[in-house]
Amino acid sequence: MTPEQFREHGHQAIDWLADYHERIESYPVGTRSRPGSVRASLQSAAPESGEPFELILRDLERVIVPGLTHWQSPSFFGYFPSNASPPSILADLISSGLGIQGMMWATSPACTELETHVLDWLVDLLGLPSAFRSDGEGGGVIQDTASSSTLCALLAARERMTGFASNAAGVIQGGYKDNGDFGNLGDFGNLGGATLVAYASREAHSSVTKAVKVAGIGEANLRLIEADDEQMMDPAALGLAMDTDAKAGRRPFFVCATIGTTTSAAVDPVRAIGAHAARHGAWLHVDAAYAGSACVCEEFRGSHDGVDLADSYTFNPHKWLLTNFDCNVFYVRDRRALTDTFAINPEYLRNAASDAGGVIDYRDWHIPLGRRFRALKLWFVLRSYGADGLRRHIRRHVELAKRFADLVSASNNFELAAPQRFGLVCFRHRGDDEKNRAILRAVNEGGSAYLTHAVIDGKVALRLAIGAVGTEWRHVAGVWEAMEENDE
Amino acid sequence: MTPEQFREHGHQAIDWLADYHERIESYPVGTRSRPGSVRASLQSAAPESGEPFELILRDLERVIVPGLTHWQSPSFFGYFPSNASPPSILADLISSGLGIQGMMWATSPACTELETHVLDWLVDLLGLPSAFRSDGEGGGVIQDTASSSTLCALLAARERMTGFASNAAGVIQGGYKDNGDFGNLGDFGNLGGATLVAYASREAHSSVTKAVKVAGIGEANLRLIEADDEQMMDPAALGLAMDTDAKAGRRPFFVCATIGTTTSAAVDPVRAIGAHAARHGAWLHVDAAYAGSACVCEEFRGSHDGVDLADSYTFNPHKWLLTNFDCNVFYVRDRRALTDTFAINPEYLRNAASDAGGVIDYRDWHIPLGRRFRALKLWFVLRSYGADGLRRHIRRHVELAKRFADLVSASNNFELAAPQRFGLVCFRHRGDDEKNRAILRAVNEGGSAYLTHAVIDGKVALRLAIGAVGTEWRHVAGVWEAMEENDE
Repeated sequence: MTPEQFREHGHQAIDWLADYHERIESYPVGTRSRPGSVRASLQSAAPESGEPFELILRDLERVIVPGLTHWQSPSFFGYFPSNASPPSILADLISSGLGIQGMMWATSPACTELETHVLDWLVDLLGLPSAFRSDGEGGGVIQDTASSSTLCALLAARERMTGFASNAAGVIQGGYKDNGDFGNLGDFGNLGGATLVAYASREAHSSVTKAVKVAGIGEANLRLIEADDEQMMDPAALGLAMDTDAKAGRRPFFVCATIGTTTSAAVDPVRAIGAHAARHGAWLHVDAAYAGSACVCEEFRGSHDGVDLADSYTFNPHKWLLTNFDCNVFYVRDRRALTDTFAINPEYLRNAASDAGGVIDYRDWHIPLGRRFRALKLWFVLRSYGADGLRRHIRRHVELAKRFADLVSASNNFELAAPQRFGLVCFRHRGDDEKNRAILRAVNEGGSAYLTHAVIDGKVALRLAIGAVGTEWRHVAGVWEAMEENDE
Repeated sequence: MTPEQFREHGHQAIDWLADYHERIESYPVGTRSRPGSVRASLQSAAPESGEPFELILRDLERVIVPGLTHWQSPSFFGYFPSNASPPSILADLISSGLGIQGMMWATSPACTELETHVLDWLVDLLGLPSAFRSDGEGGGVIQDTASSSTLCALLAARERMTGFASNAAGVIQGGYKDNGDFGNLGDFGNLGGATLVAYASREAHSSVTKAVKVAGIGEANLRLIEADDEQMMDPAALGLAMDTDAKAGRRPFFVCATIGTTTSAAVDPVRAIGAHAARHGAWLHVDAAYAGSACVCEEFRGSHDGVDLADSYTFNPHKWLLTNFDCNVFYVRDRRALTDTFAINPEYLRNAASDAGGVIDYRDWHIPLGRRFRALKLWFVLRSYGADGLRRHIRRHVELAKRFADLVSASNNFELAAPQRFGLVCFRHRGDDEKNRAILRAVNEGGSAYLTHAVIDGKVALRLAIGAVGTEWRHVAGVWEAMEENDE
């Protein structure tokens, strides 16, 4: 494809996408694809000779589109939103086209500096602690997902607690009885052979469990703390668990609090949790993957009480801040704790700027080495919408969620399964689980909208998560109508 | 931005990129930016109101472009290439615009099925072992970088060796003397308390060291094995190290062989290495991040002798197969070993297709949960170029590298620092390290080309890695001319 052909086919691709978004409401929101049906329509081997772009675009339409669930549809209400605004899509295009690497400052300074800069903007825009800004000892980095950021937080916590001995010599967990009798292991760095223990709410995201496995902590050393009847972590239960572990000679090292849980957008009491973490010298990580974006509006910042106690914090602009996937933001209070955990410096990456210090090399802030220029899309989004536009967008979604929750509350057949929070409504039919599953199936198979489910208080609930760029009241009301049709 | 504005600005963005690529040779290849200069030109806070797209594009040109090193320039020869072909850029645009999530089959079946399908295509196209195809017990997955894939391989190896006890109860490493006396820890699953040990060449990528830290193995339990004078791992030294560890009661569990090392594209003797791994029941991982793409040409498959012994294999289409970053491919022989390592199944992700089995849920193949539709760009690339076009592209780059190596060999002042392999030439001036550093600085500061360096046999060497989409002989010859100018 020559540069001129790139120009021509690029315009075709843009037009195809614009058309796709214009007709997106004509598709069933959830795919009707069956296992294997996409593969059955694909060529059995890569072609020997190149094929024309038009043919590939035609197959995209013919084979791929029917196999998609349309996450950008204004009637997509499943999981959490993954909103791709036009400016973010175009910025991502430019990032792909520039094709630069941001692993170090030296490999393209603008990639590093724009990232540091817009993440400082976001600290102020969201009213987060200034300790997360890069002009002190903290700083932010863009990662792919909150799962990766939470893992990085847990690893930095592990290294801080063990004085970097686990990086050096490996983790030592649970190979002996949990009775505090680990003296026979000798004095091993700052670790002393004590089993490290992590804590999160039973409502926390599954990535916490994944992280303790990856980091060699072990699932048995993750305490999933009870939550109250509003799905908030019980800080007294946390304190008790930490004390019990400490008394038994184990070492509480990491606590994850969640602001906006995956099931019901519940908000853990971060301040009380932080106090317990501080008592034990444990790292406090706050997972605000979904709800963090809401803080562009001052009226939602109450959810973030206590975040000033956090060692690290993560949220996903790719969920609810108009920035297309992937764009997770991860802040730390002490960037050295993070970079000392990950730093590597082979000869082939050495360069004058890094050797002199004073520049950020983001390779040392996460697991991958290579990295895309993702700050570009945050920059385009923040400038295209402005703070004001982002606030309007969040407020509109929350307003729609409230209106839907009011419908539920006023209904005889349905009830709220959890308090309505942010853009999420968890609700259920007053019938049994089977009734709720049947409604979910009927709505999704009908194709006019797409919901997912959760289990709250042991019973099936339906989740309506509002967050697509183009969602209006008529789309939300459409869910209500579809349910009423299926409730006759 | 309305859909109509998206169309309009999309055309502007495409034109901007097409213009950028047309004038890319007019920029100095390496940036002349100084620390802080990009930030100094940026607004101090996010704007309160939205700004017009044209203004942002103007700032892109004014502030960002001067802060870039132009990785897509035909005169970029640093590190390894990161080639972004036109079809891959446009496919990535479509992926951004569709904005779907591929974490599970159910969240958009086409994303999963196209990925499985094109990765099967690639097994055949590269002549890799059919055990990596999805129609048996193996399979492939797209990840962000080889660093992540190598970590996943190491974690699966850890779990296989410990019978999943380290996931369950944590890792137990090195907290006692290395004398095989670990009986006092009691019998702990299949682990038996033995320290796990990993092996790689001293020439292996830094990501292996990063992975042993992350996974709780500890850097002290990674043996970096000697390489010969052609930078290939010495299999006898590996065998001796493994035997010594095993005799001392430690457990060799992971061996990483490299095909195309970062420093000099050296090729480890995989077959001999694999035999040692097999003797000890250790997982054999092959890192072919750079050189894997060369296997589209039969004449380069000799480098892959022994890959049939590998448990896992990774290569980066984003390095040298015309696919823009990020696109790493990771294959395993036994997908269950991988998915059992990472599987999580919270209620909010449950769905009929996953519960029934028989579909792939890629969330369980790596650390992140959410995932982009990256198979789309591989599909566009494979179809746009065809097998034939990809082979031509690889052969052309290797041919250019050979021609440059011939210039070096015929020169009085320069010599090869390592055998020329694939698209890479490592060479040096016959002067001292300082002379070579001075040449590197002069060429890069001159702006007509960009090289990086390495240390080979204790001496500074220059690396010329050929792989940009548009590189022709005149660009390679330009490096030679720039060096001769600086050697007077």
